[in-house]
Formats: sequence, C-alpha cells, structure tokens
Amino acid sequence: MQRDIFLIGSGQTRFGEWWDKSLRSLAEEAVNIALKNAPCTALDIDMVIVANMLGEVINNQAHLGALVSNFLPHTPPALRVEAACASGSIAIHTACALLESGRADTILIVGAEKMTDINAEIISQALMSAADSEQDQPCGLTFPGIFGLIAKRYMHEYGLTRKELNAVSFMHHHYSAKNPHAQFQNAISPEEVEKSPLIADPLHMLDCSPVSDGAAACILSTKKKSSYRIAASKLANDTVSITDRVSLTSFSATQKAAKNAYEEAGITIKNISCIEHHDCFSIAAIINLEDLGFAEKGKGIEWYTKPITSSLSSVTSINASGGLKACGHPVGATGVKQLIEIGKQLESTNTRYGLAHNFGGACATCCVHILENISAPSIT
Amino acid sequence: MQRDIFLIGSGQTRFGEWWDKSLRSLAEEAVNIALKNAPCTALDIDMVIVANMLGEVINNQAHLGALVSNFLPHTPPALRVEAACASGSIAIHTACALLESGRADTILIVGAEKMTDINAEIISQALMSAADSEQDQPCGLTFPGIFGLIAKRYMHEYGLTRKELNAVSFMHHHYSAKNPHAQFQNAISPEEVEKSPLIADPLHMLDCSPVSDGAAACILSTKKKSSYRIAASKLANDTVSITDRVSLTSFSATQKAAKNAYEEAGITIKNISCIEHHDCFSIAAIINLEDLGFAEKGKGIEWYTKPITSSLSSVTSINASGGLKACGHPVGATGVKQLIEIGKQLESTNTRYGLAHNFGGACATCCVHILENISAPSIT
Repeated sequence: MQRDIFLIGSGQTRFGEWWDKSLRSLAEEAVNIALKNAPCTALDIDMVIVANMLGEVINNQAHLGALVSNFLPHTPPALRVEAACASGSIAIHTACALLESGRADTILIVGAEKMTDINAEIISQALMSAADSEQDQPCGLTFPGIFGLIAKRYMHEYGLTRKELNAVSFMHHHYSAKNPHAQFQNAISPEEVEKSPLIADPLHMLDCSPVSDGAAACILSTKKKSSYRIAASKLANDTVSITDRVSLTSFSATQKAAKNAYEEAGITIKNISCIEHHDCFSIAAIINLEDLGFAEKGKGIEWYTKPITSSLSSVTSINASGGLKACGHPVGATGVKQLIEIGKQLESTNTRYGLAHNFGGACATCCVHILENISAPSIT
Repeated sequence: MQRDIFLIGSGQTRFGEWWDKSLRSLAEEAVNIALKNAPCTALDIDMVIVANMLGEVINNQAHLGALVSNFLPHTPPALRVEAACASGSIAIHTACALLESGRADTILIVGAEKMTDINAEIISQALMSAADSEQDQPCGLTFPGIFGLIAKRYMHEYGLTRKELNAVSFMHHHYSAKNPHAQFQNAISPEEVEKSPLIADPLHMLDCSPVSDGAAACILSTKKKSSYRIAASKLANDTVSITDRVSLTSFSATQKAAKNAYEEAGITIKNISCIEHHDCFSIAAIINLEDLGFAEKGKGIEWYTKPITSSLSSVTSINASGGLKACGHPVGATGVKQLIEIGKQLESTNTRYGLAHNFGGACATCCVHILENISAPSIT
C-alpha cells in the first residue's frame, strides 16, 4: 500500500427480502449508519464509490454514483463500479487507488442490491450476465448449473462425497444464526441440505446462496485514523467462460490475488486469524480455502468437517458472518460487508490480520483484501 | 496530476448502426487498433478499465472488465465503471488515479456500447435509468423531454430563438462530414433541423444525438511516453433529479469540474485551442460552452452563429469530431472518443492544450479532461 488507509466507519442493513424498501433507501440506511459511527462528518467525504451489479435491470436505476452522492449535502464526486458479484470489493480496491493517488482523503463506499422484486426466472437470467453471453449463456447454463458442473468434477477428481458437502451450509447457518444482519438466522442440520430440492445436480437448494436485498457502506480515509488499516488490496482476473479454463476445480484468479495480497501485506497465511470468503455455492467454499492456501488440494472440506485447527494457519473463524449462503448475497453489497465483518471479528478476538475474498462470475474477477488491526498483537 | 500520464495509443470503430457486430467485437476492434499503434505490447497492459452503461439491459452482458481482460493473453486485473453517459471519461479518471497510485503503469481503457439491437421505446426507457427513478421517471419524462424543458426555459430566460438553435446541429454535421469515424457523414442545412420531426418541443429529431453502436479505446501510461500528457482529470457531481436544481439553464457540475481542471492543469481557458463537449442535445451545446467559461451566460450560441473568434479564448475548433449529435453517441464510448479526438486535433494543429467535457444524465456527473501536447508551443 502506498499510503496508510484506515477503515473509519461502517454500516449495513440486515440482508433479506425487503419488500418495503427500495435500492435507494437500503443504500441510504447503510450510509447513515456508517456516517454516524465514523469520526468524520458528511462534509469530510470527498468521493463516493458505489458497487452495484443489476440496478439498470431490476430497479431501472443506473448512475448510482451520482444518486448516492446526492445523499450528502455537497454532492461529492462519485462513480459506480461493477464486476458482477465482486463489485463490492472492486469498489474498495478502486477507493484504495484513489486514496493512494491523493485525489481523495476520505471515501464513502456503498455496495447495494435490491434483487427480490422480480421473479426467479428473470433474476437467474440477469445474474447470468456475469457469465459469457456468447459461450456460456447459449448452452442454457445458469450459475447453479456452472457450479453444479464444478462440484461434479471436484467430486470426480478428489472423491468429495455429497454427505461431506452438507457440512458447508450447516456451518454457515450455524454462524448466521448469531448474526443480527444475516438473512437466515436459523440453524440447519447437515441432512436438511441434502433433503432440500435438487437445483443442479449435485447441488441442492441449501447449497446455494440466496437472492437478497441489502446494502453495506464503509468509509476509508488517509486523513482520519482508526485501528483498522487496509494492509493489502489485490485484484486478479481469469477467463469469463468456464469453457476456456484449464481446470474447473481451482480458480487461478483467487490464487493470484491471494499471493499478491500476502506479499503486499508482508505476511503469510499463518498471520491470519479470520476469513470471509465467497461461498456463492457450497462447492466454492471448499475450492476457495484451497486456492487461498489454507488447505491442500482436495482437503478444503476438512475446514468444515473437522475442528478448526491446521498446521498451515492460525485461522479461528471462517465466514463467521454466515457467508453468502446464510448471511445473504445482495450482490454489490457482499464485498463491502465482508470487509466490515473482518473488522468486527478482528476487534472481538483482538487479533491482527483478517482476509476478505470476493469473486465475480465463476471467479473471473477476484479481489482479496487484508485488514490489519494495528492495536492487536501479531501472530507469528 | 501526481504523475505524468501519457496517452500512448488509441483506436476506435466507426460509430453507427452495426447490425453485424456485437458489443464484444466492437470493443475488440477498438482494442486491437489501440494496441497496434501504441509503443507497447499487449503484455505491457497491467490493468483494464471498461466504460459501459447498458450491457446488462441490451446485451445481457455485465462483467465487461473481465470480458475485455480476456482479449489479452495474460488476463490483467480489470473492472468496469458506469456513470451513465459520462462512463467513458469516468473510466479515464479512474485510470488516472490507478496510475498515480502506482498500482498500474499502463492501462487499457475501453468504452463500448451496442444500442441498436432493440427498439426505440426500450432504449429510451433504458437510457432513462440515468435519471432519477423515483422523481423523474414517474413523471413520464424521457431525456429528450428533460432537455426540451431545459431548452424552453433557456429560451425564456435568454431569448434564444428556434432559428438560432438550428446552427448547432448544422455545425456538428458540417464537421462530421469529414470524420471517417462519424455515424453521420452528411452535411445538413440549418432549415433541415427545424423541419425534422418534433420530438420534445422545442427539440426536433436533428437536435438530438442518435442511438449508436461503437467503441473507443486508449492506452494511458506512466512508463511509456508520448507527446500527449493528461494535464487534468476532474470529476464533479450535481443532483440527479432536475426537480432538485436551482437552475435548469446552467450545469454546476460542469462549472466545478472545469474550474478544478484549469487549476490542476495550471492554465486558463485562453490556453485551450480545441474542445470536445457533450452535446447530447443542441441546447446542451450552448449551456456547456457557457459553463466551461467560453461564453458569457446567454451567449453560448454565438460559437455556432458567428465566426469562431472570442476575446475570452484561443479556441479554433469545437466538436470537430461532429460531437455526439453527428459523430454518434454509443454511450460508454463517447468520453474515450473525446480524449482521442482532442489528441488528433492537438497534433494536426500543433497546439498545446485541448479539453474534453463529458457528462451523464442532465449533467449529474461531469468529467473534464485537459490534454497537453508537450511538443507544441504554448499559447498565452
């Protein structure tokens, strides 16, 4: 990082089905909470970055940067970024560059999505715009379909069983039951996952993250300080179409972004105490932990089936928010929520480093952030 | 500017109705030309930024950063930005910040839009997502409607006549007739403007920029040099809804962005020899020239009705590309095309400074760039 960038404020709505709220009111709710708990006023915000994927399609509202800028009395410069489900972390990455460039001192980042106003068929098609419209979409693939194929191949290559896979959503719901911002605040049994309706073999409904409404906002600053410093912000890409990949069972964009992030933060995975990763489908959770370096290939499931201890790392919590599956996945908000969650977890455990991993499509875009609690002791 | 950023390569498709080309193929065509004429290889590109407004709605394709990254063998980090019709310049602005931050040395920026595949009613509604979905859209307003109101008010306040307004599109077509990349390569008479179908009183069809397909790409670098340096990149915002404005006849976002840009470049308007400004409708052309400081309030039309000479500036060409009206307006591409055009005009006239002015909505987002031809003499 070229400058010290601090997370000085954050706010989020509960994720869920908000029939009585609009995209705008959700964003405004998150912004107001973030401003209220930050050591700055609205007038200190000198830039706004909005993360959103489907505003034009679902809400007939583009130009969301300007719209959110209008929440503030001085309508500061604003833009919107989009990288499908990675939009939230891309907004943070863009904010880091703007802060490092000196073009802004304090940036408000808002991720927001309002997805439940339309029917499942339309939302499924809209989300599929994150995949390749010439190579993937014409095959009739949907994202559950893509990750179903990935799960099938993973099972074939590494012998993962359907019973083992149940553990992923079981664990995410176990956590979300304690998260007041989570869409689902109920525990589920491993057996319930497998008994839920089949969506795209071998994935069942409870393997899939839901359609959600919600917003998350954070304020990053080089001028105002806090105990939470962005230690790394790295972005990497891969082919959009899965037909162009060498492998379906690991995501090279995660591997590249993570490697570069550890290097930028000057740490190894042994220093990290908590992770929020992009479990859009249960199978992704397993692949993510392997690609991030926390498990050997084929062993990612052990983070869910065995007590959390590993010779590789000091991680004590994984997706303690409930992850995308159980906390909910309002697309543009997810990457921002992850960073906020990592901040909370570092605070509550008084540990030093946490990692947020967010991707778009079948990991065609991946962004990894490492947050440092500078007042906590280092783990080595 | 924190660093010297050079425009080292550029490419564009002809703007028009490209029934046989896709959003992707248009973007690829522009990228290939830019790479071909830049003093770098594809592998030197260490970041990609895509400007696009309506990919999800019209082309069922979001995630365009990753898609364009896939044109390059090493799939560099990529993102997409959107600020309605200002998306192109916002992409350049974001690229400047990323270059200044040191996160990238050489960035490929691509603006692309494929708008002619759907009917006029749908495109009109889709474009209206740049306005306020809660305050403007429910009134039944369209963008021609909004600018029709603005034109009516301007005529009321400043006595502009319908006959005078004809001069704007006449002049833009006069220029575009010589531009091989322009959508319309035909001259029109002033009378034809007024005789074209009435769209939103007092605006006729030939007062309105068209629906267009096209792409424009440029490569900016801090590592490789050229004679063309970005001297300023400034972004400003205003309320999205016109119902929240103090005035309909000037755009404060243009005024702010321009003032800050002159300051960043360390010049006054007297140093500028050429302008590409955002003439989405003929009335906007007049307001833009006033807000940029090139005409007193109420006098902007004189740039179109009298020979180009002014005590205020040394400008010798305005919208020599044909502007949005006659060169075409594939939304995401426009801001990128403007910068490329300014480069060409500075080269052909061997002059020092040119200005690109691009806005979104009814100027709720405005971005002003000043390009400097460092090998040309200064005008003072």
